[in-house]
Formats: sequence, C-alpha cells, structure tokens
Amino acid sequence: MAEHLSQSELDYPFKLLEYINGFRVSQVIFSACDLGVFDLFLRSPTPLSAEAVARELGASEGGTERLLDVLAGFHILEVEVVEGKALYSGTDVSNLYLSKAGAKSLYDMIVYFSQTIYPLWGSLADAIRERKNEHETNIESEDLFKAAYRSDEEMLKFMGFMNSTWVIDGHDVVTAFDLSPFNTIIILGGCSGALAREVTREYPAATVTVLDSSAVLQAAREHFLQADDTIQFQEGDFCAGEIPPADLYVLPRIIHDWKEDMVVQLLQKIHGSCKPGVYRPTNMYLYGPSSFMSTG
Amino acid sequence: MAEHLSQSELDYPFKLLEYINGFRVSQVIFSACDLGVFDLFLRSPTPLSAEAVARELGASEGGTERLLDVLAGFHILEVEVVEGKALYSGTDVSNLYLSKAGAKSLYDMIVYFSQTIYPLWGSLADAIRERKNEHETNIESEDLFKAAYRSDEEMLKFMGFMNSTWVIDGHDVVTAFDLSPFNTIIILGGCSGALAREVTREYPAATVTVLDSSAVLQAAREHFLQADDTIQFQEGDFCAGEIPPADLYVLPRIIHDWKEDMVVQLLQKIHGSCKPGVYRPTNMYLYGPSSFMSTG
Repeated sequence: MAEHLSQSELDYPFKLLEYINGFRVSQVIFSACDLGVFDLFLRSPTPLSAEAVARELGASEGGTERLLDVLAGFHILEVEVVEGKALYSGTDVSNLYLSKAGAKSLYDMIVYFSQTIYPLWGSLADAIRERKNEHETNIESEDLFKAAYRSDEEMLKFMGFMNSTWVIDGHDVVTAFDLSPFNTIIILGGCSGALAREVTREYPAATVTVLDSSAVLQAAREHFLQADDTIQFQEGDFCAGEIPPADLYVLPRIIHDWKEDMVVQLLQKIHGSCKPGVYRPTNMYLYGPSSFMSTG
Repeated sequence: MAEHLSQSELDYPFKLLEYINGFRVSQVIFSACDLGVFDLFLRSPTPLSAEAVARELGASEGGTERLLDVLAGFHILEVEVVEGKALYSGTDVSNLYLSKAGAKSLYDMIVYFSQTIYPLWGSLADAIRERKNEHETNIESEDLFKAAYRSDEEMLKFMGFMNSTWVIDGHDVVTAFDLSPFNTIIILGGCSGALAREVTREYPAATVTVLDSSAVLQAAREHFLQADDTIQFQEGDFCAGEIPPADLYVLPRIIHDWKEDMVVQLLQKIHGSCKPGVYRPTNMYLYGPSSFMSTG
C-alpha cells in the first residue's frame, strides 16, 4: 500500500493535495448545513435554481451557486440543466443524513465539528508539542468535561454530537454481540440516551439505565427523549462516586477520554461491582481505539 | 455516479464521514510540517522511534506517537516493528513534497493553508451569506491583495504558496501548448517568478519578464531567485497602469481574483496591447476555473 501511494504520488501529488484540501471539503458541508441547504431541498417538491435557493436562505446568489455546484460535484446534491438553467435537488443521502429531520441525521455532529472541533484542531501542532488535549490547549482546562460542558449551549452541542454517533452506529454496536442474557444494563456516561434507546429496541426485556450527571440527564429529558422511550435515568458520577449494581456495564466512548491511571481505577471499580459467575466476560473494542464496551 | 454514492452511503455514510472529517486529515499533515517531522526523516539515515522523534522535535512523546501512527496509516510515513518497537521512516513522497528541502516541496503551500486559509474558511457560511470573499469576511478589506499582503510576513507566506503551486504545476502548464513562437513573454502578476522560471527552462530563447509590484519583486529577488535564473523583473500595476508590449501575456491565477467588470477591463487592455496578426490566439483554462492563461 505504501508503495502504491508513493508510485502514483511521485508523478503528481493528487492524494496529498486532496489531504491538505480536506478542510475545504468539510467546510463546504458544514456551511451548507448551517445555511439550511439540505432542509430546504428536503421540503421542496421540485428542483430549485441557485437563485431560488439563495432567495429562500437569504444568502448571496453567487456564493450559493458555487456552493451548490460543489455539492453536486460531490454527488451530495443532484443537478440537471433545463432550458439552459441549472436546477438542483436533494438526494436520498442528503435527505437521510444531512437534513435536520433525517432519520439518521448527522446535523448535530456537523454543528459540533464546525463550531467546536474545527477551531480546536487549528492548534493541533501545539497540542502535540505540549501533550495537551484540544480543550486544554485552547480553553485551558485540564478537565475535559468541564471544558466541553463549559456552558449549557456547549453541553447541548456536545450531547447532539454524541447522539448523532449512536444514531448511525448504535444498532450495529448493540447487535454485534448477543446481549439478551443481561437483565439490567447500565450505560455509564449514557449522555443523550441514544445508545440506551438502541439497546431497549433490540432487547425489550432488559431494564436499561443511563447514568450521567444531573445537568446531562435534564438536557437528555428536555431535548432528546422520545415519546416511546423506555429508558431509565439515574443521576451519578461513575468517576468519583459509586456504581450501582447491574448485569452489564456499557462505557460508550468513555475510556478514550481519560488517562491510564483513571481508566484502571474505573475498570477496577466496575470489576468490583460485578457478580462473579453470572456473566460471560467480553471486551469489545468499537469504532477504532476510541470506543470501548466493557462487559464484566 | 450520484446513484453510486447514494447506494453505498445509504447503508453507512463512510464517504460523508470522510468528508466531514477532512479537516482533521489536513491538520495532521499541517502539524507534522509545523513540527518538522518530514525534515527530520529526510536527514535521518536510519528509522526512528516515536521517542527519538519526540526528543529531536521537542514535542510530547504520546502526541508524537499518535501523529506518526496516523501518518503511517496514510502511507505518508513507513513503519516497521523491530523487537516489539515501532520504527518510522520517511517515504519518497514525504521527502519530495513535504520536507522543506524537497525538490517539489509543498511546505510553503501547507504553511499558507494552515496559518491563513484554514482559519479564513472557518467563516465560509458567512462569506456565502454576504457574498464576501474570505479576506473581506475576516480581515474586512475589499481589496483582496491589500488583505493578503497586509504585512511583509503575510505577503511572503502568500508568495511561498504561489511558488509551491508552480513548482508542481508549472512545467505541465508551459508545455501544454507550444510557446516557442513567442519571443517576449510577460507574466502579469508573476509573483515569486516560479512560473517564469519554468518558461525560461522550456523556452530558453524567449525573454521572460515578471511584472508585479515593487514590494513583491523585492521579496522575489531576496527569497525566491535562484543562481541560474534568467528571469527579468519589471515593476508595474497591470490593473491601474499601462501594460508593456510583449508577444505573449500570461495571467497566472489572476482572473479568478477579480469581479467581472475588472476582468473585462483587464482583458480589453491586454487586447489593446497585442500586435494583430503576429500571434496565434489561444485561451487556456488551467487547474479548473481558478487559473487562466490568456495569449493574445
């Protein structure tokens, strides 16, 4: 593979240019979400001209036309030329993932990437120099969650991001292993409840509890709870406090947040809460090294 | 093609996730350049451990190791495991394009992208709303070059960026058409002289002149001129001032900078300077719509 990249790139650095221009591709999608392009196409019964899109969104015509052309170039929108005029429409992909109302909407993830992560990553080199995480470098907080939750608005954006990840990955995660032997399941740091929802849908007999801080649980109830949810919520701090008894503990994207001594301490605490002999021990690494589900 | 993207993406949005994470890929390369990773590997006679790289660059070991692993994942670096320890080395691609000293170094382009363009593109949505260019939105200057050249440091970074583009594209551009009938060639806005150099190398009989502002020409002489260069430099303002006589005028990445009325005015001026019947009129669009070479 290394050979392959080298050989093609030595003639012309197509791939390298793609990599170093990757931030522009991200921003094209971020901007289209921000402007409401995909929501407009979702509710429009007919294809629209750039002029009509610009008028509807209150944006400039020239800028909008360029944006739509790039999105059509990525096959995220469709374009057809009718009587010399370009008419754009949404695609199944943009409707499903990029509109706010899409069944698997990544909109909240995109907002978090755009507004929070993109500026933070502008200091990546400094973070590597000083071994600080993104938030430490820019917000000067050693506590990741004090930084990420530094305001109600930031907390809600972060929760939206987490919610998006489980909307697309949650079903695959909870069906990767048969969890039906477990009667009580606690999601430590369960945040918006999106992963818990996937568990309740797949294993309706289990009692599924989200354990998180009171502020997070309140926001989860206000902004993310759905009418038919059967999720339980329990206030708690799995780092500093006790862990309630359960048959299965799930740590969704938790382990990668903490330094090793803290992780060892947490896993020891979970190990201590487990009833020996009742469960089948399994470790599942999910979504690369950044997520982890520990079944004790 | 649209069908193709839709079909694969509807199952799982791999491509969309790649797009919205593109900014991270860019920042990985930007950071590695900033830290001097590729320069270190270029001069290192043997593969290096993450520990050794971190020590040499004065960076954290943990951060450096992660960075090197990502670069190896992109096949930009090579990695081998010797006695349980990962050892990294540069590749032909990283030596050629990503080290400062590489024959086709993109280093200056990457610095400009990283330090200037990446933050500007953080406001893309606002730019589209208001039809302002990047600099207008962030630096509040209507004059693109007053903004881009707002300090000697910014001017030099911009010139480095332009220089990089012609180091990789210049030869292809000047050999795409046979320019040997032209005896005197003026590069309007010739900047660092990189494209002019490619012309002189391919057409040594021609007199090749870079026309640009005195500040740019001074910086070109100080920072970009090479010992064997045969380029002429002439101070001038092709927008406001006269255009000297020549057999061929080249506008390298110029047309896309200006609004339509200004472009029409400029092309009319060039048309007026041309001696009829002597040249073979050709228009070449290069590098998508963003570059343009006008031969009168």
